[in-house]
Amino acid sequence: MNKNVTEFREYREKMNKEILSADNLVIKRLFNLDMKTYQDGELSAKTKEILGLVSSMVLRCDDCIKYHLEKCYNLKVNDAELYEIFSVANVVGGSIVIPHMRRAIEYWNDLKQE
Amino acid sequence: MNKNVTEFREYREKMNKEILSADNLVIKRLFNLDMKTYQDGELSAKTKEILGLVSSMVLRCDDCIKYHLEKCYNLKVNDAELYEIFSVANVVGGSIVIPHMRRAIEYWNDLKQE
Amino acid sequence: MNKNVTEFREYREKMNKEILSADNLVIKRLFNLDMKTYQDGELSAKTKEILGLVSSMVLRCDDCIKYHLEKCYNLKVNDAELYEIFSVANVVGGSIVIPHMRRAIEYWNDLKQE
Amino acid sequence: MNKNVTEFREYREKMNKEILSADNLVIKRLFNLDMKTYQDGELSAKTKEILGLVSSMVLRCDDCIKYHLEKCYNLKVNDAELYEIFSVANVVGGSIVIPHMRRAIEYWNDLKQE
Amino acid sequence: MNKNVTEFREYREKMNKEILSADNLVIKRLFNLDMKTYQDGELSAKTKEILGLVSSMVLRCDDCIKYHLEKCYNLKVNDAELYEIFSVANVVGGSIVIPHMRRAIEYWNDLKQE
Amino acid sequence: MNKNVTEFREYREKMNKEILSADNLVIKRLFNLDMKTYQDGELSAKTKEILGLVSSMVLRCDDCIKYHLEKCYNLKVNDAELYEIFSVANVVGGSIVIPHMRRAIEYWNDLKQE
Repeated sequence: MNKNVTEFREYREKMNKEILSADNLVIKRLFNLDMKTYQDGELSAKTKEILGLVSSMVLRCDDCIKYHLEKCYNLKVNDAELYEIFSVANVVGGSIVIPHMRRAIEYWNDLKQE
Repeated sequence: MNKNVTEFREYREKMNKEILSADNLVIKRLFNLDMKTYQDGELSAKTKEILGLVSSMVLRCDDCIKYHLEKCYNLKVNDAELYEIFSVANVVGGSIVIPHMRRAIEYWNDLKQE
Repeated sequence: MNKNVTEFREYREKMNKEILSADNLVIKRLFNLDMKTYQDGELSAKTKEILGLVSSMVLRCDDCIKYHLEKCYNLKVNDAELYEIFSVANVVGGSIVIPHMRRAIEYWNDLKQE
Repeated sequence: MNKNVTEFREYREKMNKEILSADNLVIKRLFNLDMKTYQDGELSAKTKEILGLVSSMVLRCDDCIKYHLEKCYNLKVNDAELYEIFSVANVVGGSIVIPHMRRAIEYWNDLKQE
Repeated sequence: MNKNVTEFREYREKMNKEILSADNLVIKRLFNLDMKTYQDGELSAKTKEILGLVSSMVLRCDDCIKYHLEKCYNLKVNDAELYEIFSVANVVGGSIVIPHMRRAIEYWNDLKQE
Repeated sequence: MNKNVTEFREYREKMNKEILSADNLVIKRLFNLDMKTYQDGELSAKTKEILGLVSSMVLRCDDCIKYHLEKCYNLKVNDAELYEIFSVANVVGGSIVIPHMRRAIEYWNDLKQE
């Protein structure tokens, strides 16, 4: 098991558990909706995860990128497709997206090494 | 021809022409790359336009949204798919995306009335 | 009735109705959650609307600002309080918030003239 | 003394001291104004710190969040109130706010352990 | 006198006057600091206005862009320099900056027609 | 050689090499354009790097800030000039820029210690 992937997952899971245990209705429903959003529908789960990834990149949220990278990896997005998603993110969002692309590639490699 | 669609296109075209006539090499190449980004490749042009649309929504750029809406419309994105793109944009980007969704729907209606 | 206030409300209502009629489950629940968020709880509805207003200002969403301004107005936020909300928004978000403060004041005046 | 809290405070203090010693008039006045903004006025210091916190969350500035969390903690914001502030931040700013909420909860726990 | 330039100036002046008359100390000092920031110092006023312009472009604040464009125009920034500022803004901030560049060019033309 | 500077450079170089080896045409051209943007032209390379720095600060991209800080350092930007760039970034972008200024000063010190 790759250490970076495991650490990310464990921290995420631990904190989500604490957040949900706080019993704030709005936050609980938001977490629930967040998962529902990426399920198969008119658009496939794969397309939706790609949408989640590109949105996370242009908004420059590293943890969100990691989360969607794992989903994309499991849904068989390949390397060439990944770089095309990155190309859209970089063109739309500019060179400030590049550092996030570097870390995304590093995490993508981590996912492969699992 | 719908007036809003025509006006948007004409203003965009007129200003792009003036910008490109200024002969700034970096800007000319960026404009060129911008078009290349959304061509068929590993991902289809349709998927890429959907990526452009969702990115424009979470970054809240109305003119970018209009541009990609027209491309999506021409590439046969249907209403149910459009709302799923919007659902991702709203979940990722929050309620500040809603006013842009309202204007996007309005423009989508304009595109249909052409 | 002030014309700007009426127009804003009517456009918002008309488009929301169309959006909700599309029957996208995620979007419908988000709209529902959005309202729930600002109800009396541990923090008063007034404090929550103030939070919604300052968030909308630093994120520079004019329509969101208008919406929360009306709520704040109905919940008896006074002028001096309003300017203190603006002062936080300007300090945190910088001078790019100023144009939104100008339009917010204009709309605040419109709300008073109703 | 919790190590994370101490380290954050010390780094912040050390760098602020160096920045202020550079004697740039605009920056010195900004730092001064920044403190003035959150003092008791028409709105209480507590309400203003809550405004500072929610603004920092939707703008996704971890260090700003930590700073306002400590102020909120000292001004007796309780856990249930904190989660309501988070609920507004998440609804307005979307799921990209979630990773910052996770880190905020972690730091909130650190503040309690002091 | 060009109508767009006049209208922008008059609205800005009118609202600033109202804002300052509200006598909020933080906002008054921020407005004062804002002007001080762009005065000749180690960097020339011209360089600082160029910095203000590029910052306003990547943050996509049309009114801020107009304000700095007028200052740049008065400080003799020429067309070729302007396009190089735009090229930095577009490369750093991505294609979402393009619609703001279009409107900036339009306003630049308005400033010349005065 | 300062360790922080060396590590930043090496990571950046290693990941850029991997990204470029993926042979995505759009990304390769963007990387190429990115370098072209900051070359001497109507505005000097020094002025352009200052523009790149201020843009990176208001957009709050730490890695972009480090990159442009090194360029500015090599092009003989002095401390007083640096603080004036920071003053513009802080006034335009607000107090959320301050944590990035702290880290920028720290890296600037690292660059001097090489």
